[in-house]
Amino acid sequence: MLTSSEIKQIKSLKDKANRHEQQKFVVEGEKMVAELAHSAFTIIAVYATDEWIEQSSNDIKGLLKEKLIKVKTKELERISSLKQPQSVLALVAMPQQPETEIQFKDIILAFDDISDPGNLGSIIRIADWFGIKQIVCSSTSVDLYNPKTIQATMGSIFRVNVFYTDLEKWVSANKQNATFYATLLNGKSVYAVAKKRPAVLVFGNESRGVSQSIQQLIDQAISIPKFPDEKSSPVESLNIAMSAAIFCSEWRRD
Amino acid sequence: MLTSSEIKQIKSLKDKANRHEQQKFVVEGEKMVAELAHSAFTIIAVYATDEWIEQSSNDIKGLLKEKLIKVKTKELERISSLKQPQSVLALVAMPQQPETEIQFKDIILAFDDISDPGNLGSIIRIADWFGIKQIVCSSTSVDLYNPKTIQATMGSIFRVNVFYTDLEKWVSANKQNATFYATLLNGKSVYAVAKKRPAVLVFGNESRGVSQSIQQLIDQAISIPKFPDEKSSPVESLNIAMSAAIFCSEWRRD
Repeated sequence: MLTSSEIKQIKSLKDKANRHEQQKFVVEGEKMVAELAHSAFTIIAVYATDEWIEQSSNDIKGLLKEKLIKVKTKELERISSLKQPQSVLALVAMPQQPETEIQFKDIILAFDDISDPGNLGSIIRIADWFGIKQIVCSSTSVDLYNPKTIQATMGSIFRVNVFYTDLEKWVSANKQNATFYATLLNGKSVYAVAKKRPAVLVFGNESRGVSQSIQQLIDQAISIPKFPDEKSSPVESLNIAMSAAIFCSEWRRD
Repeated sequence: MLTSSEIKQIKSLKDKANRHEQQKFVVEGEKMVAELAHSAFTIIAVYATDEWIEQSSNDIKGLLKEKLIKVKTKELERISSLKQPQSVLALVAMPQQPETEIQFKDIILAFDDISDPGNLGSIIRIADWFGIKQIVCSSTSVDLYNPKTIQATMGSIFRVNVFYTDLEKWVSANKQNATFYATLLNGKSVYAVAKKRPAVLVFGNESRGVSQSIQQLIDQAISIPKFPDEKSSPVESLNIAMSAAIFCSEWRRD
């Protein structure tokens, strides 16, 4: 049974400012909560229906223990931010951002003002597939703990580290620590470019691309060639998550 | 000024059955309507606000001519299926499906029961980027003219042909006409496989994958390798659109 103040508090976490003030976020759905239970994240409470509790493995229930709170389906609907609420919702503590711990090795993805939560979530899922464990976002980027981002990661949020920082300063300060690539529309073909490591692959905002000031700091502009060629194709752009999938694949195939 | 029966009729096109009965579908937004105006599709009517009419080029207005109907913002909101209605909406005639015209050349994408409209739309956009002009969908797949599919194509729907057919029969009848690849979780690495042409790349349903009966008909199972390897990575799957982006890129890079 949830009190109305509990309901109000959980619902308030749909807003970024409230999430960051309370240092809490919400994770929904069976798959996500199962991954959460096995992760290193600190769980505050898990609200689940009878149905979920009956169907869940003892393994997961053992991990959640006294944090598991039984609620009615109607209560879950009230606190959910999904269109089709599922049978379980968890309240999770935001981990401390380990900003000083970015390690210059392998591949790092960086986002200059990514704005769509679904895109960021999809990209975290792709990074996880390709074993890329570090993502850097400009401070102006969409919030990692946005419910749409969380859901789109399909659990990969628990395995990939996302850092927020002043991206221009960070690139500028770390020019010697990696080769910086910017994904632009008029760069060198990604199929032909040397894939150095450590590599930072910088992606721009969905509409505006990579900012001029950051473009000036990078080592190599790269692109996914259109077919048959730039001139005869009327397509304007690839979605940023699709484009990230291809760049990650290109670095991993070598 | 729209009559209430016009509003009712346009709104009825949100349902697949009504779209196919009337052989009409809806296209929304400035970019989409601009691409539509330059396409070979038959436009029935374009409903636009004063604002859109003022800001549009004479080029586009010339193409639309007497099909352009001025409406109020409130009227447009009533007929729109977008959360944030834009300033223009077009009613378009469904083209006849040129089913007998599938040409076995280059690359063809095939979908065994794709169910998410956004995924299908994103894939059409990717195909367009890579100059892939033919997509085959099983009859049970999501409708091409679903508003979410249309919007996700970002205009590529006007340049890529999508055919609906009994996919199993079609694969079976055309085994000699192309090399059939199925994208599975346990196939040969796409980085290592010979990229024959004409190629048909078969993708499965978002949850169930490629059906057993179709798996038995194909020539080669292919996969995108996880990093570092299948065993040590806990990620379950890549989104179908991301995966399609990588497979298309792999066929084009050779």
